[in-house]
Amino acid sequence: MKRTPLILFLTLGVLLIFTGALLYAQEEAENTQVVQGAFATLPEEPPIPEDNAMTPEKVELGKMLYFDPRLSSSGVISCHTCHNLSLGGTDRLPSSLGHEFLTGGRNAPTVLNAAFFNLQFWDGRATGLEEQAQGPIQAGVEMAMPADMAVNRIASIEGYLPYFEAAFPDEETPITFENIAKAIATFERTLITPNDALDRYLRGDEEALSDDAKRGMEIVVQVGCIACHNGPMLSTGTLMPFRHGEDLGLATVTGEESDEFMFRVATWRNVSLTAPYFHDGSAETLEDAIRIMGSVQLNRDLTEDEVYYIVAFLESLEGEVPEITIPDLPAD
Amino acid sequence: MKRTPLILFLTLGVLLIFTGALLYAQEEAENTQVVQGAFATLPEEPPIPEDNAMTPEKVELGKMLYFDPRLSSSGVISCHTCHNLSLGGTDRLPSSLGHEFLTGGRNAPTVLNAAFFNLQFWDGRATGLEEQAQGPIQAGVEMAMPADMAVNRIASIEGYLPYFEAAFPDEETPITFENIAKAIATFERTLITPNDALDRYLRGDEEALSDDAKRGMEIVVQVGCIACHNGPMLSTGTLMPFRHGEDLGLATVTGEESDEFMFRVATWRNVSLTAPYFHDGSAETLEDAIRIMGSVQLNRDLTEDEVYYIVAFLESLEGEVPEITIPDLPAD
Repeated sequence: MKRTPLILFLTLGVLLIFTGALLYAQEEAENTQVVQGAFATLPEEPPIPEDNAMTPEKVELGKMLYFDPRLSSSGVISCHTCHNLSLGGTDRLPSSLGHEFLTGGRNAPTVLNAAFFNLQFWDGRATGLEEQAQGPIQAGVEMAMPADMAVNRIASIEGYLPYFEAAFPDEETPITFENIAKAIATFERTLITPNDALDRYLRGDEEALSDDAKRGMEIVVQVGCIACHNGPMLSTGTLMPFRHGEDLGLATVTGEESDEFMFRVATWRNVSLTAPYFHDGSAETLEDAIRIMGSVQLNRDLTEDEVYYIVAFLESLEGEVPEITIPDLPAD
Repeated sequence: MKRTPLILFLTLGVLLIFTGALLYAQEEAENTQVVQGAFATLPEEPPIPEDNAMTPEKVELGKMLYFDPRLSSSGVISCHTCHNLSLGGTDRLPSSLGHEFLTGGRNAPTVLNAAFFNLQFWDGRATGLEEQAQGPIQAGVEMAMPADMAVNRIASIEGYLPYFEAAFPDEETPITFENIAKAIATFERTLITPNDALDRYLRGDEEALSDDAKRGMEIVVQVGCIACHNGPMLSTGTLMPFRHGEDLGLATVTGEESDEFMFRVATWRNVSLTAPYFHDGSAETLEDAIRIMGSVQLNRDLTEDEVYYIVAFLESLEGEVPEITIPDLPAD
């Protein structure tokens, strides 16, 4: 008679443990689904506009122009100066130094995977890489080269003509400012960094992410970072309000009150390669940037542990940077 | 009886022609020897100093440092900015733009084959690449980075340490300014451009040089350019007086009257890639440079034809520039 309650308790206990374990496993699975659903692997190829087909000849020409400092009025600044492929596609400065060491006050966004963004620049004022590429060449504080002078300079280097003819075979006058930008944009579409740890994890390699990184991934889902940092770029690619410093964002261009403090959501891909952070480069480290975003965007003081785990997750987003050989530029 | 004189004349005539042809052939052969003797093929490897052995690890580190703009106080100027391997190892500017767009007033000499020179800089004030590399990093108008700050900056990028340890394996404190220079110099010893048309010709390929280039080669021998432009570098590598402009050459450094207007003889290897010319970049084209040298150094007005053939010869001195991939620099 004494045995019945014991067996009952034991049975109930086992059942409870079992049910608990089941519920826990289900919750885990749901968590994992939520976590994984927030992100997506980086496609192997970015979208390509209909009017700028990708050809090896155009990539080659674009690479030459990307590296050619003669596209700047001083002759020393190239696209590569501020979007340095040795340094994660940026210059690692708070804000870039351009013509005569002037600065526009904005941090150079990485060129790596920029092809997956539609809106370009920190304030999204350009659409597509073709429009973007035309900006810094002409900007007085960057390369300071008016469009017509850029065309004249490049046309005066006779060795360029065959490359333009190969890249734009059906055009009578292939050396135009639009084509310079089209070629550069085409080269930039090759600057994709696949197979980072997150992507390998999402494709089923459970071991690709460390436990710390997985914990960080859960935290960014739980605390809400993924409202803006989601999808293959871990960024919606859209403008979101970020009130930080004096820079008015898109309103600087449009003057519209509704555009004040509107900035493009930064990608997390390769983010550990591209300090300092934010449009003004005011956050020196990833830790600083995470704390400020938690506070300003989520109204939340992240704990030291949370920051630690989020850093571990972000550091697992360094993809394979393509190997680039230095192009041989025509002498004249 | 009438036939004897005729046969005599004919025989004499044939003999004369034959002797003439022989003499001509001999003169030609001597000419070719003189011409060929003035020059020598570029050795495959430059001299390597005893205290800076060449290792793959040191080459790799040197390449990273050569491309790293963080060696400059602004963070935007690297060795590669002024010695751009896309542009014949120079910047193709009359005089380089350095820190804050300041200029030292001298043209950047090419880094290609610089390892074959003992005296470095236009005025030869440094001996060897190790000493040379320390100059522009510290110069206020170039990279503007004091030696101790350069060491601190590089040491603060933790990712560099393993590369220094591999390059300087027996040293307790491998990150020193001397070692930074040693590594850069070691990388520069790989920037050799073999197998240009002259070298292939000197090795027996008669067709390697065009007829125009061969004619130009004869002219530079005849008019005396080869007094200074001889040997494997087509330069003695020594200082010679060149009175052109206000720049006092080595006397700027030493203050000695005997050093006034003393400049290192420029190499002709790859010279068609490195316009503009002279220590002050005042000659825009090869044609200008040839005319001025003829006039100032040889007191001779070269004809248009002579200039044309000399250009053809100099253009055949473009060697094979090594293919360089962009290094992946440590983020921090």
